[in-house]
Amino acid sequence: MGDILKRLATVIEERRQADPGDSYVASLFERGRDTILKKVGEEATETVIAAMGGQHDEIIHETADLWFHTLVMLAEQGLGPDDVLVELERRFGLSGIEEKASRMTE
Amino acid sequence: MGDILKRLATVIEERRQADPGDSYVASLFERGRDTILKKVGEEATETVIAAMGGQHDEIIHETADLWFHTLVMLAEQGLGPDDVLVELERRFGLSGIEEKASRMTE
Amino acid sequence: MGDILKRLATVIEERRQADPGDSYVASLFERGRDTILKKVGEEATETVIAAMGGQHDEIIHETADLWFHTLVMLAEQGLGPDDVLVELERRFGLSGIEEKASRMTE
Amino acid sequence: MGDILKRLATVIEERRQADPGDSYVASLFERGRDTILKKVGEEATETVIAAMGGQHDEIIHETADLWFHTLVMLAEQGLGPDDVLVELERRFGLSGIEEKASRMTE
Repeated sequence: MGDILKRLATVIEERRQADPGDSYVASLFERGRDTILKKVGEEATETVIAAMGGQHDEIIHETADLWFHTLVMLAEQGLGPDDVLVELERRFGLSGIEEKASRMTE
Repeated sequence: MGDILKRLATVIEERRQADPGDSYVASLFERGRDTILKKVGEEATETVIAAMGGQHDEIIHETADLWFHTLVMLAEQGLGPDDVLVELERRFGLSGIEEKASRMTE
Repeated sequence: MGDILKRLATVIEERRQADPGDSYVASLFERGRDTILKKVGEEATETVIAAMGGQHDEIIHETADLWFHTLVMLAEQGLGPDDVLVELERRFGLSGIEEKASRMTE
Repeated sequence: MGDILKRLATVIEERRQADPGDSYVASLFERGRDTILKKVGEEATETVIAAMGGQHDEIIHETADLWFHTLVMLAEQGLGPDDVLVELERRFGLSGIEEKASRMTE
Protein backbone atom coordinates (compact mmCIF):
# COMPACT_ATOMS: atom_id res chain seq x y z
CA MET A 1 0.00 0.00 0.00
CA GLY A 2 2.80 2.26 1.07
CA ASP A 3 4.40 3.11 -2.22
CA ILE A 4 1.26 3.93 -4.18
CA LEU A 5 1.91 7.67 -4.05
CA LYS A 6 5.41 7.10 -5.40
CA ARG A 7 4.12 4.82 -8.15
CA LEU A 8 1.50 7.40 -9.02
CA ALA A 9 4.19 10.07 -9.21
CA THR A 10 6.09 7.84 -11.66
CA VAL A 11 2.98 7.39 -13.81
CA ILE A 12 2.45 11.16 -13.80
CA GLU A 13 6.02 11.74 -15.01
CA GLU A 14 5.54 9.17 -17.79
CA ARG A 15 2.20 10.56 -18.97
CA ARG A 16 3.51 14.09 -18.83
CA GLN A 17 5.41 13.38 -22.08
CA ALA A 18 2.36 11.97 -23.85
CA ASP A 19 0.13 13.65 -26.42
CA PRO A 20 -2.21 16.05 -24.58
CA GLY A 21 -4.99 14.74 -26.79
CA ASP A 22 -4.50 11.22 -25.43
CA SER A 23 -3.57 11.91 -21.82
CA TYR A 24 -5.42 13.88 -19.15
CA VAL A 25 -2.13 14.33 -17.26
CA ALA A 26 -0.37 15.68 -20.35
CA SER A 27 -3.27 18.04 -21.01
CA LEU A 28 -2.96 19.42 -17.46
CA PHE A 29 0.74 20.11 -17.94
CA GLU A 30 0.12 21.67 -21.35
CA ARG A 31 -2.51 24.00 -19.91
CA GLY A 32 -0.04 24.89 -17.18
CA ARG A 33 0.26 25.85 -13.54
CA ASP A 34 -2.93 27.91 -13.23
CA THR A 35 -5.04 25.05 -14.59
CA ILE A 36 -3.40 22.52 -12.27
CA LEU A 37 -3.96 24.77 -9.25
CA LYS A 38 -7.58 25.38 -10.21
CA LYS A 39 -8.05 21.62 -10.12
CA VAL A 40 -6.44 21.43 -6.66
CA GLY A 41 -8.82 24.11 -5.37
CA GLU A 42 -11.80 22.54 -7.11
CA GLU A 43 -11.13 19.06 -5.74
CA ALA A 44 -10.60 20.49 -2.25
CA THR A 45 -14.05 22.08 -2.39
CA GLU A 46 -15.55 18.84 -3.67
CA THR A 47 -13.87 16.97 -0.81
CA VAL A 48 -15.34 19.41 1.71
CA ILE A 49 -18.81 19.09 0.17
CA ALA A 50 -18.57 15.28 0.14
CA ALA A 51 -17.41 15.25 3.76
CA MET A 52 -20.35 17.47 4.79
CA GLY A 53 -22.61 14.86 3.18
CA GLY A 54 -20.89 11.98 4.97
CA GLN A 55 -21.13 9.46 2.11
CA HIS A 56 -18.03 7.29 2.37
CA ASP A 57 -17.72 6.39 -1.30
CA GLU A 58 -17.93 10.03 -2.34
CA ILE A 59 -15.46 11.14 0.32
CA ILE A 60 -12.97 8.50 -0.84
CA HIS A 61 -13.53 9.42 -4.48
CA GLU A 62 -13.02 13.15 -3.92
CA THR A 63 -10.04 12.72 -1.60
CA ALA A 64 -8.41 10.49 -4.23
CA ASP A 65 -8.99 13.24 -6.81
CA LEU A 66 -7.50 15.81 -4.41
CA TRP A 67 -4.39 13.77 -3.65
CA PHE A 68 -3.93 12.92 -7.33
CA HIS A 69 -4.04 16.56 -8.39
CA THR A 70 -1.74 17.49 -5.49
CA LEU A 71 0.79 15.04 -6.93
CA VAL A 72 0.44 16.68 -10.36
CA MET A 73 1.02 20.07 -8.70
CA LEU A 74 4.15 18.75 -6.97
CA ALA A 75 5.45 17.28 -10.26
CA GLU A 76 4.91 20.60 -12.03
CA GLN A 77 7.11 22.19 -9.37
CA GLY A 78 9.85 19.54 -9.69
CA LEU A 79 8.79 17.98 -6.38
CA GLY A 80 7.43 14.57 -5.41
CA PRO A 81 5.46 12.87 -2.66
CA ASP A 82 8.62 11.99 -0.70
CA ASP A 83 9.34 15.67 -0.15
CA VAL A 84 6.03 15.99 1.65
CA LEU A 85 6.28 12.64 3.44
CA VAL A 86 9.77 13.51 4.74
CA GLU A 87 8.34 16.76 6.11
CA LEU A 88 5.50 14.89 7.80
CA GLU A 89 8.00 12.33 9.11
CA ARG A 90 10.15 15.14 10.51
CA ARG A 91 7.21 16.73 12.30
CA PHE A 92 6.09 13.31 13.45
CA GLY A 93 9.50 12.21 14.64
CA LEU A 94 10.62 15.31 16.51
CA SER A 95 8.70 15.11 19.76
CA GLY A 96 5.54 14.42 17.85
CA ILE A 97 3.24 16.07 15.40
CA GLU A 98 1.45 18.00 18.14
CA GLU A 99 4.24 20.46 18.72
CA LYS A 100 4.44 21.25 15.03
CA ALA A 101 0.73 21.08 14.50
CA SER A 102 0.14 23.62 17.25
CA ARG A 103 1.90 26.13 15.05
CA MET A 104 -0.57 25.48 12.26
CA THR A 105 -3.45 26.86 14.28
CA GLU A 106 -1.92 30.34 14.19
CA MET B 1 8.69 6.26 3.46
CA GLY B 2 5.68 4.34 2.34
CA ASP B 3 3.82 3.89 5.58
CA ILE B 4 4.08 7.43 6.90
CA LEU B 5 0.47 8.22 6.12
CA LYS B 6 -0.61 5.10 8.00
CA ARG B 7 1.62 5.96 10.95
CA LEU B 8 0.22 9.48 10.95
CA ALA B 9 -3.30 8.08 10.96
CA THR B 10 -2.36 6.02 14.03
CA VAL B 11 -1.00 9.10 15.79
CA ILE B 12 -4.19 10.98 14.96
CA GLU B 13 -6.31 8.21 16.48
CA GLU B 14 -4.16 8.25 19.65
CA ARG B 15 -4.23 12.02 20.06
CA ARG B 16 -7.94 12.13 19.39
CA GLN B 17 -8.49 10.80 22.93
CA ALA B 18 -6.22 13.38 24.55
CA ASP B 19 -7.18 16.55 26.40
CA PRO B 20 -8.16 19.18 23.83
CA GLY B 21 -6.14 21.67 25.86
CA ASP B 22 -2.98 19.63 25.31
CA SER B 23 -3.49 18.32 21.79
CA TYR B 24 -4.19 20.20 18.57
CA VAL B 25 -5.68 17.02 17.07
CA ALA B 26 -8.01 16.54 20.04
CA SER B 27 -9.07 20.19 19.82
CA LEU B 28 -9.98 19.71 16.14
CA PHE B 29 -12.16 16.71 16.97
CA GLU B 30 -13.77 18.54 19.89
CA ARG B 31 -14.64 21.50 17.67
CA GLY B 32 -16.09 19.06 15.17
CA ARG B 33 -16.58 18.40 11.48
CA ASP B 34 -17.12 22.00 10.36
CA THR B 35 -13.86 23.12 11.95
CA ILE B 36 -11.93 20.22 10.43
CA LEU B 37 -13.34 20.96 6.98
CA LYS B 38 -12.56 24.67 7.31
CA LYS B 39 -8.95 23.66 7.91
CA VAL B 40 -8.97 21.43 4.80
CA GLY B 41 -10.26 24.34 2.70
CA GLU B 42 -7.87 26.80 4.31
CA GLU B 43 -4.81 24.61 3.77
CA ALA B 44 -5.85 23.97 0.15
CA THR B 45 -5.93 27.72 -0.47
CA GLU B 46 -2.56 28.13 1.21
CA THR B 47 -1.17 25.33 -0.96
CA VAL B 48 -2.44 27.07 -4.10
CA ILE B 49 -0.95 30.40 -2.99
CA ALA B 50 2.39 28.76 -2.16
CA ALA B 51 2.43 26.97 -5.52
CA MET B 52 1.74 30.25 -7.35
CA GLY B 53 4.80 31.66 -5.57
CA GLY B 54 6.97 28.67 -6.50
CA GLN B 55 8.96 28.51 -3.23
CA HIS B 56 9.72 24.84 -2.68
CA ASP B 57 9.91 24.96 1.13
CA GLU B 58 6.56 26.72 1.38
CA ILE B 59 4.92 24.36 -1.10
CA ILE B 60 6.15 21.35 0.87
CA HIS B 61 5.05 22.93 4.16
CA GLU B 62 1.55 23.75 2.94
CA THR B 63 1.05 20.42 1.16
CA ALA B 64 2.05 18.64 4.37
CA ASP B 65 -0.54 20.71 6.24
CA LEU B 66 -3.15 19.85 3.61
CA TRP B 67 -2.45 16.11 3.67
CA PHE B 68 -2.36 16.11 7.47
CA HIS B 69 -5.77 17.79 7.76
CA THR B 70 -7.13 15.47 5.07
CA LEU B 71 -6.13 12.56 7.30
CA VAL B 72 -7.93 14.19 10.24
CA MET B 73 -11.01 14.59 8.04
CA LEU B 74 -10.85 10.91 7.03
CA ALA B 75 -10.48 9.85 10.69
CA GLU B 76 -13.48 11.93 11.68
CA GLN B 77 -15.46 9.99 9.07
CA GLY B 78 -14.22 6.60 10.26
CA LEU B 79 -11.94 6.30 7.23
CA GLY B 80 -8.18 6.08 6.78
CA PRO B 81 -5.48 6.66 4.18
CA ASP B 82 -5.70 3.08 2.89
CA ASP B 83 -9.25 3.69 1.72
CA VAL B 84 -7.96 6.45 -0.54
CA LEU B 85 -4.81 4.62 -1.57
CA VAL B 86 -6.82 1.52 -2.56
CA GLU B 87 -9.02 3.75 -4.69
CA LEU B 88 -5.94 5.28 -6.37
CA GLU B 89 -4.48 1.79 -6.79
CA ARG B 90 -7.70 0.62 -8.41
CA ARG B 91 -7.71 3.53 -10.86
CA PHE B 92 -4.02 3.04 -11.43
CA GLY B 93 -4.15 -0.72 -11.86
CA LEU B 94 -7.24 -1.10 -14.02
CA SER B 95 -6.13 -0.05 -17.49
CA GLY B 96 -4.42 2.99 -16.03
CA ILE B 97 -5.21 6.18 -14.27
CA GLU B 98 -5.82 7.98 -17.54
CA GLU B 99 -9.12 6.32 -18.22
CA LYS B 100 -10.38 7.14 -14.76
CA ALA B 101 -8.80 10.55 -14.69
CA SER B 102 -10.48 11.48 -17.93
CA ARG B 103 -13.76 11.25 -16.05
CA MET B 104 -12.53 13.76 -13.50
CA THR B 105 -12.38 16.50 -16.08
CA GLU B 106 -16.17 16.39 -16.40
CA MET C 1 -24.49 51.06 -10.25
CA GLY C 2 -25.91 50.36 -6.85
CA ASP C 3 -28.76 48.04 -7.67
CA ILE C 4 -26.96 45.73 -10.05
CA LEU C 5 -26.79 42.91 -7.52
CA LYS C 6 -30.53 43.21 -6.96
CA ARG C 7 -31.21 43.23 -10.69
CA LEU C 8 -28.98 40.22 -11.10
CA ALA C 9 -30.90 38.43 -8.35
CA THR C 10 -34.11 39.14 -10.27
CA VAL C 11 -32.65 37.74 -13.48
CA ILE C 12 -31.53 34.64 -11.59
CA GLU C 13 -35.07 34.10 -10.26
CA GLU C 14 -36.49 34.48 -13.77
CA ARG C 15 -34.01 32.13 -15.41
CA ARG C 16 -34.44 29.58 -12.63
CA GLN C 17 -37.78 28.64 -14.19
CA ALA C 18 -36.35 28.23 -17.69
CA ASP C 19 -35.47 25.03 -19.52
CA PRO C 20 -32.14 23.75 -18.14
CA GLY C 21 -31.12 23.05 -21.72
CA ASP C 22 -31.47 26.74 -22.59
CA SER C 23 -30.32 28.42 -19.40
CA TYR C 24 -27.08 28.05 -17.47
CA VAL C 25 -28.83 29.32 -14.32
CA ALA C 26 -31.65 26.79 -14.68
CA SER C 27 -29.11 24.01 -15.22
CA LEU C 28 -27.35 24.98 -11.96
CA PHE C 29 -30.63 24.79 -10.02
CA GLU C 30 -31.52 21.49 -11.66
CA ARG C 31 -28.17 19.99 -10.71
CA GLY C 32 -28.72 21.25 -7.18
CA ARG C 33 -27.00 22.65 -4.12
CA ASP C 34 -23.78 20.62 -4.35
CA THR C 35 -23.17 21.76 -7.92
CA ILE C 36 -23.84 25.40 -7.03
CA LEU C 37 -21.46 25.22 -4.07
CA LYS C 38 -18.77 23.54 -6.16
CA LYS C 39 -18.98 26.55 -8.49
CA VAL C 40 -18.63 28.97 -5.54
CA GLY C 41 -15.49 27.14 -4.38
CA GLU C 42 -14.13 26.88 -7.90
CA GLU C 43 -14.62 30.57 -8.65
CA ALA C 44 -13.05 31.52 -5.30
CA THR C 45 -9.93 29.55 -6.23
CA GLU C 46 -9.86 31.16 -9.67
CA THR C 47 -10.19 34.60 -8.03
CA VAL C 48 -7.24 33.82 -5.74
CA ILE C 49 -5.13 32.60 -8.68
CA ALA C 50 -6.03 35.68 -10.75
CA ALA C 51 -5.18 37.97 -7.82
CA MET C 52 -1.80 36.27 -7.36
CA GLY C 53 -1.13 37.03 -11.05
CA GLY C 54 -2.20 40.68 -10.66
CA GLN C 55 -3.86 41.01 -14.09
CA HIS C 56 -6.74 43.45 -13.59
CA ASP C 57 -9.02 42.12 -16.33
CA GLU C 58 -8.72 38.56 -15.04
CA ILE C 59 -9.28 39.63 -11.44
CA ILE C 60 -12.44 41.52 -12.44
CA HIS C 61 -13.64 38.60 -14.55
CA GLU C 62 -13.13 36.02 -11.81
CA THR C 63 -14.56 38.21 -9.05
CA ALA C 64 -17.66 38.78 -11.20
CA ASP C 65 -17.97 35.00 -11.60
CA LEU C 66 -17.58 34.56 -7.84
CA TRP C 67 -20.19 37.17 -6.94
CA PHE C 68 -22.58 35.83 -9.58
CA HIS C 69 -22.39 32.28 -8.24
CA THR C 70 -22.71 33.60 -4.67
CA LEU C 71 -26.02 35.16 -5.74
CA VAL C 72 -27.14 31.83 -7.20
CA MET C 73 -26.21 30.18 -3.90
CA LEU C 74 -28.23 32.76 -1.95
CA ALA C 75 -31.23 32.28 -4.27
CA GLU C 76 -31.09 28.51 -3.80
CA GLN C 77 -31.33 29.14 -0.05
CA GLY C 78 -34.26 31.55 -0.38
CA LEU C 79 -32.00 34.51 0.34
CA GLY C 80 -30.93 37.54 -1.67
CA PRO C 81 -28.19 40.17 -1.83
CA ASP C 82 -30.04 42.53 0.51
CA ASP C 83 -29.74 40.02 3.34
CA VAL C 84 -25.96 40.22 3.02
CA LEU C 85 -25.87 43.97 2.39
CA VAL C 86 -28.01 44.63 5.49
CA GLU C 87 -25.55 42.55 7.52
CA LEU C 88 -22.62 44.54 6.12
CA GLU C 89 -24.54 47.77 6.78
CA ARG C 90 -25.15 46.68 10.34
CA ARG C 91 -21.49 45.94 10.93
CA PHE C 92 -20.56 49.14 9.16
CA GLY C 93 -23.05 51.32 10.98
CA LEU C 94 -22.63 50.07 14.52
CA SER C 95 -19.40 51.67 15.69
CA GLY C 96 -17.74 50.63 12.48
CA ILE C 97 -16.75 47.55 10.60
CA GLU C 98 -13.52 47.26 12.57
CA GLU C 99 -15.18 46.08 15.73
CA LYS C 100 -17.02 43.38 13.86
CA ALA C 101 -14.14 42.58 11.60
CA SER C 102 -11.87 42.00 14.56
CA ARG C 103 -14.08 39.07 15.43
CA MET C 104 -13.53 37.55 12.00
CA THR C 105 -9.86 37.04 12.69
CA GLU C 106 -10.69 34.60 15.45
CA MET D 1 -29.02 49.53 0.01
CA GLY D 2 -27.38 49.89 -3.34
CA ASP D 3 -24.25 51.79 -2.45
CA ILE D 4 -23.20 49.75 0.55
CA LEU D 5 -20.39 48.05 -1.31
CA LYS D 6 -19.08 51.43 -2.42
CA ARG D 7 -19.33 52.82 1.12
CA LEU D 8 -17.54 49.76 2.41
CA ALA D 9 -14.79 50.28 -0.16
CA THR D 10 -14.40 53.84 1.14
CA VAL D 11 -14.13 52.63 4.73
CA ILE D 12 -11.52 50.08 3.67
CA GLU D 13 -9.43 52.81 2.01
CA GLU D 14 -9.67 54.96 5.16
CA ARG D 15 -8.75 52.17 7.55
CA ARG D 16 -5.91 51.05 5.32
CA GLN D 17 -3.91 54.04 6.58
CA ALA D 18 -4.58 53.28 10.25
CA ASP D 19 -2.27 51.63 12.76
CA PRO D 20 -2.27 47.86 12.12
CA GLY D 21 -2.52 47.39 15.86
CA ASP D 22 -5.82 49.27 15.93
CA SER D 23 -7.39 48.22 12.65
CA TYR D 24 -8.10 44.76 11.28
CA VAL D 25 -8.14 46.20 7.75
CA ALA D 26 -4.76 47.87 8.22
CA SER D 27 -3.33 44.64 9.64
CA LEU D 28 -4.49 42.77 6.51
CA PHE D 29 -2.75 45.27 4.24
CA GLU D 30 0.39 45.17 6.36
CA ARG D 31 0.53 41.39 6.19
CA GLY D 32 0.07 41.67 2.42
CA ARG D 33 -1.46 40.00 -0.60
CA ASP D 34 -0.95 36.38 0.45
CA THR D 35 -2.70 36.97 3.77
CA ILE D 36 -5.62 38.74 2.10
CA LEU D 37 -6.02 35.93 -0.43
CA LYS D 38 -5.86 33.29 2.29
CA LYS D 39 -8.79 35.07 3.92
CA VAL D 40 -10.73 35.06 0.63
CA GLY D 41 -10.18 31.32 0.27
CA GLU D 42 -10.97 30.67 3.92
CA GLU D 43 -14.22 32.65 3.86
CA ALA D 44 -15.26 30.92 0.62
CA THR D 45 -14.85 27.55 2.31
CA GLU D 46 -16.80 28.77 5.34
CA THR D 47 -19.56 30.01 3.03
CA VAL D 48 -19.74 26.60 1.34
CA ILE D 49 -19.86 24.82 4.71
CA ALA D 50 -22.57 27.19 6.00
CA ALA D 51 -24.60 26.70 2.82
CA MET D 52 -24.35 22.90 3.16
CA GLY D 53 -25.82 23.33 6.65
CA GLY D 54 -28.63 25.57 5.43
CA GLN D 55 -28.71 27.89 8.48
CA HIS D 56 -29.71 31.31 7.12
CA ASP D 57 -27.95 33.41 9.74
CA GLU D 58 -24.67 31.56 9.24
CA ILE D 59 -24.95 31.75 5.45
CA ILE D 60 -25.52 35.51 5.63
CA HIS D 61 -22.67 35.93 8.11
CA GLU D 62 -20.17 33.97 6.03
CA THR D 63 -21.22 35.53 2.73
CA ALA D 64 -20.78 38.98 4.29
CA ASP D 65 -17.27 37.94 5.39
CA LEU D 66 -16.54 36.67 1.87
CA TRP D 67 -17.75 39.83 0.14
CA PHE D 68 -15.92 42.01 2.65
CA HIS D 69 -12.59 40.26 2.09
CA THR D 70 -13.19 40.32 -1.68
CA LEU D 71 -13.44 44.11 -1.39
CA VAL D 72 -10.15 44.18 0.55
CA MET D 73 -8.57 42.06 -2.21
CA LEU D 74 -9.87 44.46 -4.87
CA ALA D 75 -8.53 47.47 -2.93
CA GLU D 76 -5.11 45.85 -2.61
CA GLN D 77 -5.08 45.55 -6.42
CA GLY D 78 -6.14 49.18 -6.94
CA LEU D 79 -9.64 48.07 -7.94
CA GLY D 80 -13.08 48.66 -6.46
CA PRO D 81 -16.57 47.16 -6.46
CA ASP D 82 -17.67 49.25 -9.46
CA ASP D 83 -15.13 47.48 -11.65
CA VAL D 84 -16.87 44.20 -10.89
CA LEU D 85 -20.40 45.63 -11.02
CA VAL D 86 -19.73 47.20 -14.44
CA GLU D 87 -18.56 43.80 -15.67
CA LEU D 88 -21.72 42.15 -14.32
CA GLU D 89 -23.80 44.96 -15.86
CA ARG D 90 -22.10 44.39 -19.18
CA ARG D 91 -22.81 40.68 -19.11
CA PHE D 92 -26.33 41.36 -17.90
CA GLY D 93 -27.05 44.08 -20.44
CA LEU D 94 -25.68 42.48 -23.56
CA SER D 95 -28.32 39.96 -24.53
CA GLY D 96 -28.39 38.71 -20.96
CA ILE D 97 -26.22 36.99 -18.45
CA GLU D 98 -26.99 33.59 -19.92
CA GLU D 99 -24.84 34.02 -22.96
CA LYS D 100 -21.89 35.06 -20.86
CA ALA D 101 -22.62 32.60 -18.12
CA SER D 102 -22.61 29.72 -20.57
CA ARG D 103 -18.95 30.46 -21.12
CA MET D 104 -18.26 30.12 -17.41
CA THR D 105 -19.19 26.45 -17.42
CA GLU D 106 -16.22 25.68 -19.66
